This record gives sequence, C-alpha cells and structure tokens, in this order.
Amino acid sequence: MVNERMYGLGNEPSAIRELFAYGLVRKAEIGADNVFDFSIGNPSVPAPDAVKQAALDLLDQPAVSLHGYSPAAGVPEVRAIIAESIRRRFGVPASAEHIYMTVGAAASIAISLSAVTQPGDEVVVISPFFPEYKVWIETAGCTCVEVPAHVPDFQLDIDALAAAIGPKTSAVIINTPNNPVGAVYSRANLEALADLLAAKEVELGRELFLISDEPYREIVYEGIEVPYVPSVYARTIVCYSYSKSLSLPGERIGYVFVSDAMDDADRVFAAVAGAGRALGYICAPVLFQRVIAACVDEPSDVDAYAENRALLTEGLSALGYEYVEPQGAFYLWVRALEDDAQAFSDRAKKHELLIVPSDSFGVGGWVRISYCIARETIVNSMPAFKALMESYRG
Amino acid sequence: MVNERMYGLGNEPSAIRELFAYGLVRKAEIGADNVFDFSIGNPSVPAPDAVKQAALDLLDQPAVSLHGYSPAAGVPEVRAIIAESIRRRFGVPASAEHIYMTVGAAASIAISLSAVTQPGDEVVVISPFFPEYKVWIETAGCTCVEVPAHVPDFQLDIDALAAAIGPKTSAVIINTPNNPVGAVYSRANLEALADLLAAKEVELGRELFLISDEPYREIVYEGIEVPYVPSVYARTIVCYSYSKSLSLPGERIGYVFVSDAMDDADRVFAAVAGAGRALGYICAPVLFQRVIAACVDEPSDVDAYAENRALLTEGLSALGYEYVEPQGAFYLWVRALEDDAQAFSDRAKKHELLIVPSDSFGVGGWVRISYCIARETIVNSMPAFKALMESYRG
Repeated sequence: MVNERMYGLGNEPSAIRELFAYGLVRKAEIGADNVFDFSIGNPSVPAPDAVKQAALDLLDQPAVSLHGYSPAAGVPEVRAIIAESIRRRFGVPASAEHIYMTVGAAASIAISLSAVTQPGDEVVVISPFFPEYKVWIETAGCTCVEVPAHVPDFQLDIDALAAAIGPKTSAVIINTPNNPVGAVYSRANLEALADLLAAKEVELGRELFLISDEPYREIVYEGIEVPYVPSVYARTIVCYSYSKSLSLPGERIGYVFVSDAMDDADRVFAAVAGAGRALGYICAPVLFQRVIAACVDEPSDVDAYAENRALLTEGLSALGYEYVEPQGAFYLWVRALEDDAQAFSDRAKKHELLIVPSDSFGVGGWVRISYCIARETIVNSMPAFKALMESYRG
Repeated sequence: MVNERMYGLGNEPSAIRELFAYGLVRKAEIGADNVFDFSIGNPSVPAPDAVKQAALDLLDQPAVSLHGYSPAAGVPEVRAIIAESIRRRFGVPASAEHIYMTVGAAASIAISLSAVTQPGDEVVVISPFFPEYKVWIETAGCTCVEVPAHVPDFQLDIDALAAAIGPKTSAVIINTPNNPVGAVYSRANLEALADLLAAKEVELGRELFLISDEPYREIVYEGIEVPYVPSVYARTIVCYSYSKSLSLPGERIGYVFVSDAMDDADRVFAAVAGAGRALGYICAPVLFQRVIAACVDEPSDVDAYAENRALLTEGLSALGYEYVEPQGAFYLWVRALEDDAQAFSDRAKKHELLIVPSDSFGVGGWVRISYCIARETIVNSMPAFKALMESYRG
C-alpha cells in the first residue's frame, strides 16, 4: 500500500504548479505570446555573470576533490565566507559553525521544522502564506496554525499572534519580504513580535523559535529597510536560499543559519544537522556551494523587477483593480473581482491570464500575480485584464 | 526544545563520518602520507572528461532557462533519456513518467520509504547493511528488521527472510553490488527472493515492495553479471545515484525508477512525488540533471579499483587476514582479529590504519576497508597491517 498522505501530495500538485503546467500546454496550443503566464516565481533576470565565471573557474580544478562529498554541514571555507558576510552586512555575531548548507530554502525550512518541534506541536504561520509551509509542518507531525496578517498593511498582527500562541506552540514562521503579498515587516513590527515571543516564552515556560524564511531579502524597492531578524530576536533560525537573489532556483542551494545570539545555538545546530541526516540530505551540491562562496556579495539585479512592478501596478490601477503595493519580492496581491478566488482565476483563464487564486495561501478573495516575467508579457496582457474587468461590470 | 531524535542524530555522527573526521585531524598532525585512511566511500577515480565537457557546454546556454526550476520530477528530456537507457541496457519496460530525479541515492531511499510505508510498518534490511538505512526507515515511522546475509557467500538468506517477513512488512531493501561486503546477488538468488515475496504477498494479503539501492551497479569485477532487479520482481523501486559510477558524490544527483512492470506504477510514482514534496525536495539540481543526460552511457572507470582490490586482497591474504572476496563496489569486508570490532578498529588506529568497525552495519566482529583510495596508500599501509597482525600474535 502506498502512503495515502504522500499519494495525495503527489497526485494533487500545488495550485501554483497546476496553473504553471496548464500554461505550458496552453502555450503549445495557441502560441506562447498569446498566454499571459503570471503563475510561478521563476526569476526572469539571469544569474550574474560572476556565477558563470565562478563555475568555469571551478571546473578547471581536479575533479576528485571538486565533486567529492563535503562534510554534511557544507564545505568549511564556504560556511566561513557566508558567516563573515552575515557579520559584515548585518552586524550580528555569526560563526561558520552555525551555518548548515542546504538544498535550497525548502530543505532549510523542512529541516528546521523537524529540528525544533515534537510531533503534536503547533507551528504558527501568517496568512496569506506560502502553501508548502503547511506540508512541511505536517511532515514534522505538527499542526499548522494560521494567523491572518494585519489588514490593510499586511504587517504582523501582534494581537492575533498573542491569541494564537499557546502551550503547544514551538515555532512561528515569517517570510519578509513576503510571498505572496510583497510586504516587508518594519523594525517596529518585528520588535513587537520579539517582545511578544519573549513574554510568551516566560508565560508558557517553553522555547519559541522564530523561523525566518528570507529568499527575497535582496529583492526590495525604493531602498526600504529589511531588518535582519536575528538582530531583533535571539532564538531565530534563518532559512536562506540563493534561488531569487542570484537567480539559481533550479540549482537548489541555500543555508540554515542558527543565530549565534541564541543561548543553546550549538544544541539547536546539532538538531538541524540531525534533521538533515534524517530527511536524506547528505550535503548540499558542492559545485554550487563553491560558486556561492565566490558570489556571496554579488548584488541582485532588481531593476527589471522594479520596472515590471511599475508597469503592472500602473496598468492595473488605471483599470480599477485593487492591490497591495509591494515593497519587496516579485508578486502582486490583487483583490479578486468576486468572493470566490478560484472562480475569478478560472474566468481570467478564459482571457489567457494565468493568476493564482488565494485559497491555497490560506485566504479567500485574492489572486497572486508573479511579475518575474518578460516586460512585454505585462504590456501585452493589459487588454486581457481590461476585458476581465469589463466582464464583471457586464 | 529541540527534537531529541534529531539532536541525537546530529550530535553523534555515523562511525564512518567520525573516523573520516579523525583522519583529517590526524593527517594534519603527522602528515597525510603517514595515515592510512580506509574510512569513507569517496571515489578516487575522477569524473570522466565528458562530465566536465557537458558542464562547460551547458554553461554557455542562457542562464535563465539553464538554472530555472525544473518540474518536481525532473527535466522531461533528462527523464526520457534515462528511461531509454534503462530500456536499451536492461531490456525492461521503463517510461520517462516513472523516473523521478533526486538529490542522490540517500534522497531516493528516504523518499521511497516514505512513499510506500505507513508509520508502524516494518522494513527488512540485510545485515551487514549501510547504517543510514535504519535512520531513514525510522524517519518514515517504521521499524528496521535486520536479517543476516547467508554466510559465507553473503548472498540473500531466503529462509531467514521468509521467517522475518510478516503482516507488518511493507518493503525489503537490498543493495547489490553490496556495501559493505562487495557481494553481487546472483540471478538465482534474486529469483528466489522474488518467488518468496510473491508468495508472501498472497499469504499476507498485502503489497511487498523491493527497494533496490544500486549506486555500485557499474563497479564490478571480472565481468560478473549484475541482474537488473526490475527484470526479476515487478514491484521493484530502483534507487540509483551517479555518485559512484560517474564519481560525482558531492553533486547529489540520482533518481528513483518505479518499475513499469508494477500494476499500479502510476499510483506508486505519485506517492514518490508526494514524498519528495513532503521532505522538502523541490527538484534535483538542474545543471547536473542535464550533465547526466549528456553522460548517461559514459562507462565507469573501474580499472583503478580493480587494481586496488588485487593489491589489497593479495597483501592481506599474505599476512593471514580473512576477508570476503569482493565481486563489486569498492569495500573489503575483513574479519577482525578479536570479537570486539570497535576494539580492533581502535587498535588499528594506533598503527594509523583507519578501518570502520562492523557494529554500525549491524554485525560484530568485522571491519570495512574502503579501497577507493590512492594506490600508494594501500602499498604503504602493508607494514602497518603486518604490525597489527603481529600485535595479536603477541
């Protein structure tokens, strides 16, 4: 007998993946230029030239040592370089011994959850939230507790969090800059969260971990500050990925950073390493570990995303759509034109607009529009968005 | 609170990793030439030139599509090429739709176990066995049932298996060519296993999966046949890795093949895909997925291992050591000179010989010697093996 949970997860791909797959079929049917695919967060900006150069340089090294196993936590020099970059950029203590290289942010989060929870615990997420959080929380045997973000600014709702954190809570997952709404949590907002968690730790007599999912850290607009979460709350585990900042999503490379500020960081780190082992991770891909070491301070190219953001928000605004102004990441959170987001997404499909309904993000009534796509797709989609709007004004 | 199981797994590395780490320290102390490190299975043969050439060619392609996400199961063309290679080389039906690209064999096995078991089930392994099997079995919530191999040939002991397979058994893991003993299961032996499993399926009224861990498939000596397990038993899941055959252990690239011969292969494949999702795997690293497509029929260079095997077995034989003649892989299974394998390994350490005690492989009284190392290390180690033998003869 196959495992029914696993069968269900494999048989029903995420709404994002499903729409993405539909788009591939539809493009083959009517031509790629005629489908406006806003479904997936695959960066449209190429990896920096430094990535290619680093890979070429590495491939000239002897193959046995280049492609051999690294220690489970990663190549020691790579971990040291990343730790140094964190110290220098964010002014927090960060030692190489607390960096665990991973196969991307998904692995980082799945590993961290297994490391700091017991089956039966609760993990809090902020809705709307990246749908896979719930999958990984349930893999750890825990329950996903959804706390709505504060409306209309989509910052953390501290009062709602206070009500949701209880005797079974072991961790809170945050994602700033945020997928899907594009919000960046302010320092004051994060400090209020830190105060709440500290008070709750005392009240409940248990450790509360803050898992900070940060793949969009470098994708921000208008120079907005993205406070470094470990500088605000000691018991933070940073889950980072180079998928978005260096446009390497398919290479699966990232890390877990167990904040040095935590009193038992060595113990938590050992649990992270053990969870990696338990879930079948031997080491992160070594060529790209070393590529990262060479490109750790390479700036992200956000200009193309900034231009797309302007084009999209100005276009949709003129058409009368309501949306959340994104401060970071490359998603636009748009109010559906009817309560049923799935029905709205389905109707958009008839106009060849592929936009993800909000239901799988834990809320109804919105859609997510990924704008990490070609500029022309946005320009050319405007008549379709206009027709969609008009179909509701009917 | 950190998870105690994960903390334990992270805090106590495997005996292999522990000895490997000791070796690094010891080499720094007394010089690499003075330490005879037989601890780990890191290939000493470099990856074929075709791997480097394929990587260089790929890096000339546009970065956005090169490094972008692949579908969860892998790049479609890569899956098609691997399936075609399986059909052509082994004469079994194999469709691209049943190939799931993974981050190496460890991921393949962890994913397969979660896909085809329920918590509380039993999974049978053949001792001595690769120690991490037990870790991944327990991650799936199952119990590891150890069945000793048949002595002295270390083939499958069909009678012992018949006694061990019961109403909670969901899968049997086999590894041929075998780590640590080097045995290759004969066709007759595998057919006897298949007959047993088929009979047990009827008797117990449940499906029994055969998980075939095959990273050493191409590392064999004297032209011995390695029967393709799906040609013998329909309900087979092949867990493959290119770590050994192409000397790419650190790049983490392999696949799961759900045999087409299985009546519900689509359903099992969906469970595999779901388990990959649940454990945090998004897709296998895409650059090396494409490297594999270019190198799928590249022959493995086993000459160096064959030479090492001859040197080591002739040398140890002359000194009076007892061992299992390896038919494949690159490990020699040697009888310890006292019952306590750990004590024997500790005494060997005093002669700067790093050999892994058999206890973590599930049996006492033996050691594993990895001979995927420099030829000179073997030659230079002989006086130490002589002194070790003499220390027991007093």
